[in-house]
Amino acid sequence: MNDRNIPLLCDYYEYTMANGYVENGLQDRVVYFDLFFRTVPDKGGFAVLAGLEQLVDYILNLRFSESDIEFLRSKNTFSEKFLEYLRNFRFTGDVWAIPEGTPVFPGEPLVTIRAPIAQAQILETFALLTINHQTLIATKASRIVRAADGRTVLEFGSRRAQGTDAAILGARAAYIAGCGGTACTVSDKWYGVPASGTMAHSWVMMFDSELEAFKRFCELYPDNATLLVDTYDTLNSGIPNAIRAFKEVLIPMGKTRFAIRLDSGDFAFLTKKARKMLDDAGLTECKIVVSNALDEFLIKDLLGQGAIIDSFGVGDNLITSHSDPVLNGVYKLVAVEQDGRIVPRIKISDNVEKITTPHFKKPYRIYDRCGKAVADLICVHDEVIDTSKPLGLFDPKAVWKKKVMKEYTVRELMVKVIENGDLVYDLPPIDEIRDHCRREMDTLWEEVKRFSNPHGYYVDLSQKLWNCRTDLIKGSKQ
Amino acid sequence: MNDRNIPLLCDYYEYTMANGYVENGLQDRVVYFDLFFRTVPDKGGFAVLAGLEQLVDYILNLRFSESDIEFLRSKNTFSEKFLEYLRNFRFTGDVWAIPEGTPVFPGEPLVTIRAPIAQAQILETFALLTINHQTLIATKASRIVRAADGRTVLEFGSRRAQGTDAAILGARAAYIAGCGGTACTVSDKWYGVPASGTMAHSWVMMFDSELEAFKRFCELYPDNATLLVDTYDTLNSGIPNAIRAFKEVLIPMGKTRFAIRLDSGDFAFLTKKARKMLDDAGLTECKIVVSNALDEFLIKDLLGQGAIIDSFGVGDNLITSHSDPVLNGVYKLVAVEQDGRIVPRIKISDNVEKITTPHFKKPYRIYDRCGKAVADLICVHDEVIDTSKPLGLFDPKAVWKKKVMKEYTVRELMVKVIENGDLVYDLPPIDEIRDHCRREMDTLWEEVKRFSNPHGYYVDLSQKLWNCRTDLIKGSKQ
Repeated sequence: MNDRNIPLLCDYYEYTMANGYVENGLQDRVVYFDLFFRTVPDKGGFAVLAGLEQLVDYILNLRFSESDIEFLRSKNTFSEKFLEYLRNFRFTGDVWAIPEGTPVFPGEPLVTIRAPIAQAQILETFALLTINHQTLIATKASRIVRAADGRTVLEFGSRRAQGTDAAILGARAAYIAGCGGTACTVSDKWYGVPASGTMAHSWVMMFDSELEAFKRFCELYPDNATLLVDTYDTLNSGIPNAIRAFKEVLIPMGKTRFAIRLDSGDFAFLTKKARKMLDDAGLTECKIVVSNALDEFLIKDLLGQGAIIDSFGVGDNLITSHSDPVLNGVYKLVAVEQDGRIVPRIKISDNVEKITTPHFKKPYRIYDRCGKAVADLICVHDEVIDTSKPLGLFDPKAVWKKKVMKEYTVRELMVKVIENGDLVYDLPPIDEIRDHCRREMDTLWEEVKRFSNPHGYYVDLSQKLWNCRTDLIKGSKQ
Repeated sequence: MNDRNIPLLCDYYEYTMANGYVENGLQDRVVYFDLFFRTVPDKGGFAVLAGLEQLVDYILNLRFSESDIEFLRSKNTFSEKFLEYLRNFRFTGDVWAIPEGTPVFPGEPLVTIRAPIAQAQILETFALLTINHQTLIATKASRIVRAADGRTVLEFGSRRAQGTDAAILGARAAYIAGCGGTACTVSDKWYGVPASGTMAHSWVMMFDSELEAFKRFCELYPDNATLLVDTYDTLNSGIPNAIRAFKEVLIPMGKTRFAIRLDSGDFAFLTKKARKMLDDAGLTECKIVVSNALDEFLIKDLLGQGAIIDSFGVGDNLITSHSDPVLNGVYKLVAVEQDGRIVPRIKISDNVEKITTPHFKKPYRIYDRCGKAVADLICVHDEVIDTSKPLGLFDPKAVWKKKVMKEYTVRELMVKVIENGDLVYDLPPIDEIRDHCRREMDTLWEEVKRFSNPHGYYVDLSQKLWNCRTDLIKGSKQ
């Protein structure tokens, strides 16, 4: 589809460590790494997972060219044995992951990688980068789409994105979370995100009059003319000229799929005025699009004030997740294999929230009898939940908070994506991911979806996993 | 160097407009676009320009493949004439720009493009994206580097960057603004940003003891061992084990270039303790590196509290410009050529700050006799400043605020980069850009460099340009 894999897009310390594993003969020791995040951006109730397809593509195609090897040799840091190791690099491990479009919560593994240590180490930077970035944007887009309450949200942010991939894959993530499309043309070509767009102010300024600019545009695009009405004076010039252009060019052709776009001014005031002017002119089917500094809070406020808007073009607040531009995902060693056994490992920390949850794990989502998600339960990999029996849950941060589920169903959250280095999962087409995301939203309580101070969804540990973690904290080696 | 140019990384409306220009026979009408920004991120006093090299590379190499043409044809929106136009696309215009590494201010043109309208239009998205992104990161990095007050700042943010280019080119921008290097390996290979790195917690967790992990690492990298001391317990295990490893492995080899890294805990407290423990052990040359949630304010606070730190690894707060992750650059039509004359154009707006400054312009920087920059003066392109005469300046937003400069020097801010589609400028190597940036910093008053509520640097219009703008606002066509 496209060739954007860059093997050296990797923190240098992955190479110094991998070189060290090779030099110490440890490179083939099989280990488990978990990718997880610690807090939801914008203090929201959940994140929307995205970026898995790019991660899988990266893992399956990671190879080092002679030029990469030559560059690393020039650093005078790495052994020839290690460079030879990289020359023959091919991922041979296993990957489990939660499918894209799924709501996810802090502390649970989103991706688990089982592989020889040197391989698993080298994947770290890209795995984090792509999951952190796309999940961040999908999470923000989900908030904005929810605020728009059924109206279309279009992603317009390429020009303010943090680099090309931020624009291109940001549009992909936004679409997964429910945006209707993007302005970014290549996201359509590469990822099937519908791209659209009509005119900027420069179009209007290229003609001797605004009316002429509008009429020429309507003639060119009679099926899809959105006229930008704020180049000179929205109410006194832009909208009257748009109405004239629609009436003189499109109505005689029998066309009714047209719109105006407002890009400045107060939208609560202007859209009501605009709607009245359009309706008074008989153009009741003309849509109103707005764009300028929108985010979930402004959209909610505008709609609460009765602004009459059909669709929103959202730029930098979406494409950078402006109000909170980082998902703090981390990638931590959780177990090593020794003599065929899986031995859990833990990282202690002076910051309590940085202590990891050890072991090769399997997260389940628990649903009540109404089909609503009530908690995620992280188990040790070989635990099976017997749904014919009551299920005891407790909060790992406050173990006295207990709950027993009687009527419930469970779903394993992760799927096996890669086995022995081969893809064993059908990566779904983007529209299927988007549908999955929409369906998943319905399984969340409204309380979890609130923007401000949402209900804290439970991510619990099984008794077995909790015991394992507690034992390791007590016995931490030094 | 690398092939990251993506012709369709372009807002779809550029194509609908360009198609319209071709269909209306306007595609060769020569126009002028300015790229400028409206406010400094983080309410700072200035921005540091970066991203020009990538823009130039894009402009010079922009071509559309058959697959791009085929994709656009599949949208059923564009004429065959336009697709043929794209098939033969080659930029033939002129580009002026302020060199990278230069401090820049709101409202002044950073890049001016003179080209046939359809060409200039198609460059819009990428021009904005690359200048907005890299200037944003260079500006943030400049703040962080200033806070570190001469200590080394390393860019460690790839894993939290918004996509691959955000990581790779973010590291480039950070280096231009004074960072000492990056963790991002490919930024070294492609752009010459020195990459370095040593170990993560996983290295420590792969060995049976922390001490063994440290000793193995010192043996491997005797000239550059930075040991991460917070995997289990910084003061009771990490630092004592590091001291033992240094003394048992490196000191006997006569090596003294080593360091410890703290990645959690309170750095004011821990670094003082660590320094004492190292000094008491006779390891006075051992450096202390810290990393964890750092930004310019925390660094300043830590140093103010006497934290003893040699270098800072800064992650997501730098690579995303977390506290303000957008530079709001825009790209506006400012003039058209008609019958050989340059006719200025303006965009009015209901938001006063969105009214543009028209015309083909030339910005000057004015220096006082001490060599400090006192104001930028934006002139019409054909104005020349006669430095033998006093220079009158006035604030365009408050015209009664006047000043007359007597002893002063001026510098034209822009250089001609592309002429008739050909490169006519020697793009400087990155270390030269970085040196230029450092020298430029010395020309700014401390008042302009303050983080909070800095002095507002003057960006003035010449009388001729001010008159032009005022006349166009009064006579704005509708």
